[in-house]
Amino acid sequence: VAADPGDIRYFSEAASAEVVNARMGANADPRLRQVMTSVVKHLHEVIKEVEPTHDELMAAIQFLTDTGHKCNDWRQEFILLSDVLGATMLVDAINHRRPGGATENTILGPFFVPNSPKRANGDDICLDHKGEPMLVEGRVLDTQGKPVAGASIEVWQTNDDGFYDVQQKGVQPDWNLRGNFTSDADGRYWFRSVRPRFYAIPDDGPVGKLLGRIGRHPNRAAHMHLMVNAPGHEPVISHIFDPDCPYLDQDTVFGVKSSLIADFQRVEDRAERERHGFAGPFWRVHWDLIVLPLPASDRK
Amino acid sequence: VAADPGDIRYFSEAASAEVVNARMGANADPRLRQVMTSVVKHLHEVIKEVEPTHDELMAAIQFLTDTGHKCNDWRQEFILLSDVLGATMLVDAINHRRPGGATENTILGPFFVPNSPKRANGDDICLDHKGEPMLVEGRVLDTQGKPVAGASIEVWQTNDDGFYDVQQKGVQPDWNLRGNFTSDADGRYWFRSVRPRFYAIPDDGPVGKLLGRIGRHPNRAAHMHLMVNAPGHEPVISHIFDPDCPYLDQDTVFGVKSSLIADFQRVEDRAERERHGFAGPFWRVHWDLIVLPLPASDRK
Ligand SMILES: [Cu+2]
Ligand SMILES: [Fe+3]
Ligand SMILES: [Fe+3]
Repeated sequence: VAADPGDIRYFSEAASAEVVNARMGANADPRLRQVMTSVVKHLHEVIKEVEPTHDELMAAIQFLTDTGHKCNDWRQEFILLSDVLGATMLVDAINHRRPGGATENTILGPFFVPNSPKRANGDDICLDHKGEPMLVEGRVLDTQGKPVAGASIEVWQTNDDGFYDVQQKGVQPDWNLRGNFTSDADGRYWFRSVRPRFYAIPDDGPVGKLLGRIGRHPNRAAHMHLMVNAPGHEPVISHIFDPDCPYLDQDTVFGVKSSLIADFQRVEDRAERERHGFAGPFWRVHWDLIVLPLPASDRK
Repeated sequence: VAADPGDIRYFSEAASAEVVNARMGANADPRLRQVMTSVVKHLHEVIKEVEPTHDELMAAIQFLTDTGHKCNDWRQEFILLSDVLGATMLVDAINHRRPGGATENTILGPFFVPNSPKRANGDDICLDHKGEPMLVEGRVLDTQGKPVAGASIEVWQTNDDGFYDVQQKGVQPDWNLRGNFTSDADGRYWFRSVRPRFYAIPDDGPVGKLLGRIGRHPNRAAHMHLMVNAPGHEPVISHIFDPDCPYLDQDTVFGVKSSLIADFQRVEDRAERERHGFAGPFWRVHWDLIVLPLPASDRK
């Protein structure tokens, strides 16, 4: 049987992706057909671009296998892989395109814990008294600049040793550096905490090894997490980034967006210290959260 | 800090792949840098093309995790995935581009066993006497048509129930349907076997489930495996495909190339039957194996 390059019944290097994609059946799930068509097309493009040897293909298969074997109930190595390849951020960005001015989303991360304690504005969420004290204050506003009252602002961050409370049960106080604040009638919220610090994602697995081989480190730029749920408005999952963190332009999961880099001010003034309940100098960040109204159909 | 779309220090949807790839360090392994640059570029293309929801990203991560968890010492689900997406065949094709006329490569498959028994030309490798008898005969030739003597031709196939001997230890005789033949002074080789039949790749895992959801079956087109090692010539790893198999144009691992589809002839003639040692009618395939000289530097 002579080879006909236009014949996609049988394999050929030239038409490899078309041969594979033509094989999907009429009863294929339509969305999965669309996804797999794209996956196969670009997978074959990668192979044609890098021309792997057989041993390199086997190394890729071994990497995926090791990554799978590293996953268990509390460790998700494929999410780490998605994170360090920028895939998680890209999917987040695509699903949260917002008009200019609205607070941008960034990665949720694995350390969010629902139902953190309700706190009064001004409370200190730092229960272990480590690190440099910091005041976070701002308003929840809509895109017209109108205050949004009664919005829930959940915050969480690592302690000054670079660990979340849930990573150090029994070492840190429960709910250390977590809290759920509510915006007041003027949309205002404020709380005391500590200046955030960078930390490393788990790098003792295949993903950490990969990072090492491509000359990258496992550190996240210093940040504080925020989740805003305002009645009638789109939820916001975001960060406040420390402007002076040495890893600001090297966040290993690409969570940093320019609009999320804050301005941290050092406050020495005694009257200010006393007004906010700090014994010494502190850091202050003013951070407004701009939320979008939900489309009428999504309102509860 | 205002967003500058040309600034690849921080994440942006538009420049997502460039942001990620710019992060690799000066000390990155050069080949891995090349591979990962391509992987990231095309991975981000897929995401931009299909715009997955967060739940779809999580479903993809769960699929990869399940695929990893299915792998153990004797089951390699990621190789199956590579096979059914045509990746294994494409890598094989790229590494074995041969001038027209030379016997083409196809997939090795997981059932090759080294050191199969040396057999004399004419021997019958079917030890369980199931299936329709078949004679395979041909010559090992170079691209000038000159006979290649002393070439090793290893053959292996399933029995008529669709299983390799190694899948049914204790059920099939050891080395059933395997053998290592040697071409004679005229380059000729010949042996008796049975007509091959289709069989399913293992489909009780995530890959089998994926195939089902995209309307595909797990069957390989009926084939006999051949590996040719001729002194001073490039090794050939190939198949002979049954021209009448209902799955010929639907091989689930895309192993079929037009040039590997044979012509099977039915022989009723008594004199021919007796000459080759068949009790009744048999199938005959004439299959020449055309090998390429090794580059001088590769000769042993
Ligand atoms: Cu692509
Ligand atoms: Fe974090
Ligand atoms: Fe096979």
